[in-house]
Order: sequence, then structure tokens, then C-alpha cells
Amino acid sequence: MTYCVGVLLHAGLVCASDSRTNAGVDNVSSFKKMKVFERQGDRVLVIMSSGNLSMTQNVINQLELNGKKTDGTPSIWSVQSLVEVASLLGETLREVRRRDLPYLQQYNIDASASFILGGQIYGEPMRLFLVYSEGNFIESTPETPFFQIGETKYGKPIIDRVITPSSTLIEAEKCILVSFDSTMRSNVSVGLPIDMLTCETDALRVCLQKRILETDPYYRLIHTEWGEGLKRIFLQLPDPQWDTADPATPQYQSQIFK
Amino acid sequence: MTYCVGVLLHAGLVCASDSRTNAGVDNVSSFKKMKVFERQGDRVLVIMSSGNLSMTQNVINQLELNGKKTDGTPSIWSVQSLVEVASLLGETLREVRRRDLPYLQQYNIDASASFILGGQIYGEPMRLFLVYSEGNFIESTPETPFFQIGETKYGKPIIDRVITPSSTLIEAEKCILVSFDSTMRSNVSVGLPIDMLTCETDALRVCLQKRILETDPYYRLIHTEWGEGLKRIFLQLPDPQWDTADPATPQYQSQIFK
Repeated sequence: MTYCVGVLLHAGLVCASDSRTNAGVDNVSSFKKMKVFERQGDRVLVIMSSGNLSMTQNVINQLELNGKKTDGTPSIWSVQSLVEVASLLGETLREVRRRDLPYLQQYNIDASASFILGGQIYGEPMRLFLVYSEGNFIESTPETPFFQIGETKYGKPIIDRVITPSSTLIEAEKCILVSFDSTMRSNVSVGLPIDMLTCETDALRVCLQKRILETDPYYRLIHTEWGEGLKRIFLQLPDPQWDTADPATPQYQSQIFK
Repeated sequence: MTYCVGVLLHAGLVCASDSRTNAGVDNVSSFKKMKVFERQGDRVLVIMSSGNLSMTQNVINQLELNGKKTDGTPSIWSVQSLVEVASLLGETLREVRRRDLPYLQQYNIDASASFILGGQIYGEPMRLFLVYSEGNFIESTPETPFFQIGETKYGKPIIDRVITPSSTLIEAEKCILVSFDSTMRSNVSVGLPIDMLTCETDALRVCLQKRILETDPYYRLIHTEWGEGLKRIFLQLPDPQWDTADPATPQYQSQIFK
């Protein structure tokens, strides 16, 4: 399983992905859920992927190959807007699916794949997109300044509560770690290490990159303090004084009890 | 959408279900997600349902009809173990599916349905079962003393963190309200009112029944204090001091940046 999240703030972009499926292999191959294309001062593009690995890898490889062509074909290095990159990503996904899907379907193999694309190209603001398995895509808005793919639900409540476009990069990094902590507690197939990456608005380069292992002292601190803090506020909640005679509670006995 | 949860403790059973799909209609018909069969001193059975409403209603109706037969057929009123009730529930679900599924499939209608069954029959301890759409079922164990159906994920982390078989009924009621609060925040199709029901071990009757409306002062208190408490502990978390030079973070530039 996978969990990836991208948060778009006024201050910049924070991306994080787990790497459980790759745990135990060497570092290079365990980065496959987060791919960065950077030409400092011109563009920084972060692509995170979830789903069938042969699909997502082929899409990324094809984007890279097309980026090396010199025949003038639009590529991730030549287009002037992030929406065009999202479009290239979706088109490439459709191509790979056209080629491979009939063969995968013969064995009922799930060929779905989705991507989060975030970043900035010179002349544009920082943007964030979600590319669906069908190749269509949506862009984040200030009302929902984040996208998640993979095992998204366990870690969503804390992001819903804490993140707004005005949050700081540090707040977003903390919130994302708490979100991963909740996800890993409830789904053992999502796990450390976490790859985290931050790009400040208009920096047009990666500003922070960090691989967080199980031994990372800051992650352990967050893990412990969050867990203890939750239990503390839970214990501080007042006990219920149920008024069962209130008119909202129907008289079950007379209606549905035998 | 639906969210139902059943928690089995040494102290007893706590069940809760939302009723958003029924909001706005009269009280009686909005109880369809939680059904109680009680013969005080002999048995108390709570069945919560999720999925295709025609499926779940037909199953419950059939169980009720069979319970009125006097020909000696085993029924929810005659069997002497909760595992037999789970079996009757699963069998009845299979019957209804055999009858209706071919017609629903013609229109690609999702006919899945699942149930949480909890309660106690005289001579047995309190038990809790989850009946799957296929009619098979599992029983809760002390390691996982709860079951959820419907929109289960948003509300699971807090139950994972707080509930053990030794929790009190009050703690479970509080935890379930927090779990519903998280679920409703992240999925607007789950909503108040919540129907909550508690049976103490060996009481062999419903001990508390409560319909929680949006105006319920205790629910509002939990909603506010939990939200504020979460933000407070989040703000108290220390800021990261990332050591990006640590050996766990590979040198991205040299490997994957163009």
C-alpha cells in the first residue's frame, strides 16, 4: 500500500510519500513513489504515484524519455505551465494503459494508477494537481489545499482540521508527519521510511529533502507526544450525563422491541 | 453513506449508528440502521446494517417473520447462542441475495450489505460479530474488540488508540462520539443524529438508548473540546530541526534530478 500527500500553501509546497513496498531494498529503488524534476531557477516538478507499479514506472520513464527528445515535442522541460505538465502526465498514462491494459485485464490485474503533481514553473505561481487513473486531472483550490493518494482516509482528519493555505511550511511538515503516524497505526502496509520534500514559493528549487527512518529522533518525538497528547485530551473530555427522557430519543420499547 | 460501530468490553456492549440517509423523515423510519430484539432476562440482540437498503431491510424483515413462526424452525428468539443468530443472519442474507441479485445485476446496482451483530443470550457471555456481504461472519476478539461498517476509516484511528476490552462503557461512549465527529468532518454523507445504545454485561436488556441530535449539548461539548484539544496538542508539538546531512537522506541531486 501507498500513502502520498501534497500540500499547497501560500508559503510553498510540502510533499511526502511512504516507501513500505520498497523497504529493504537499496535507497535508489525505494524512491519510486516520489520523483523530482528540477532545473533551478526555471522549474521544480514533484510527481508522487500510487497504484500498479509497472504503470506508474512506465509513465515516469516515458516522461523522462520524451524530455530528452530534441525534435520540439512538448515535454516536461519545455512546457511553460504546470497544467501542461499535468496534461502530459495524463496523456502518457493513457498511452501506457492503451498498450498494457488488455494484457493485464486477461489476468484481472488492477492496472489503476494515480499521481499527485506539484511544483512551479517560472512565470507561474506554485500549483498542485491530482491526475486520475483515467488520465483526467483536477487542481487544488484554497478550500482544499491538499491532495492525497493511496491509503488516504486514516490520515485525512488531522489535515482537514489543521491545514489552511496560510499554514506555515513547518506546520504542514508537522501535520503531515502526524497524518502518516495515524495512517501507519491503522494500516500496517503503510510504513516508514517517509520521503519528505519542501519547495518554497518562487525559490524554483527543492528547499528541503529528508528521508525519515524509524530511528529519526524527531519522528519518534512526534509519534510519542501526539499519542500521549490524544490520550490526555480524551481523558479530559467530560463524561456524558445522558438525558434519556429528552424528546429526541424515541421510545424504542413500544416501537421496535418485541 | 453509513457509519456504524460496535464495541465489546468486559463491562458490556456499546453500539452506535448514524442516520443521515434518513434525516428529515419521521423518527420511526430513521431507525433502520440499528435494530434491537430484546426479551428482558433472556436475550438482547442489536443488529446494525450498512449497504443496499432493500437488502438489509429484507433480511431484517425476514428474521422477524421467521421469529413469529411456531413450527419449531430455529429463529432469533429460539436459538441458544449468539453464533447461531449470526448464522441465521448470514443465511437470510444469502437467501435474499439469491432471490434479488440477478435482477439488481441487470442494472449494475450494488447489492452488497453487511451487518454488525452484538448482544447476549442467557447462559453465554456478551458477543460481537461481523457478517459480510457473502453471508460468512467473524467474531471479535480481545485484540480487536470492535467492528465498524460503512465509512469506517476516518473514525478508526481514535478507537485504535483508546479502546481496550478493559475500557469503561462511558469511555467507549465518549470514544465513539469522537470517532463519529472525525468521520462527519471528513465525509459529509455521514451525519447526525446518532443512535447510541449500551447493554451492560449480564443485564440482558438495553441499559441506555439515546438519539443524539445536532442540538445535543453533550455532543456539542465533545465536538468543540476535541477539536480545540487537537489543535492545542498540535501547536504544542515541537518544530522539526531537520538534519538533512544525515546518512539516511540520499543525495537526490546526483541521482534523480536532471
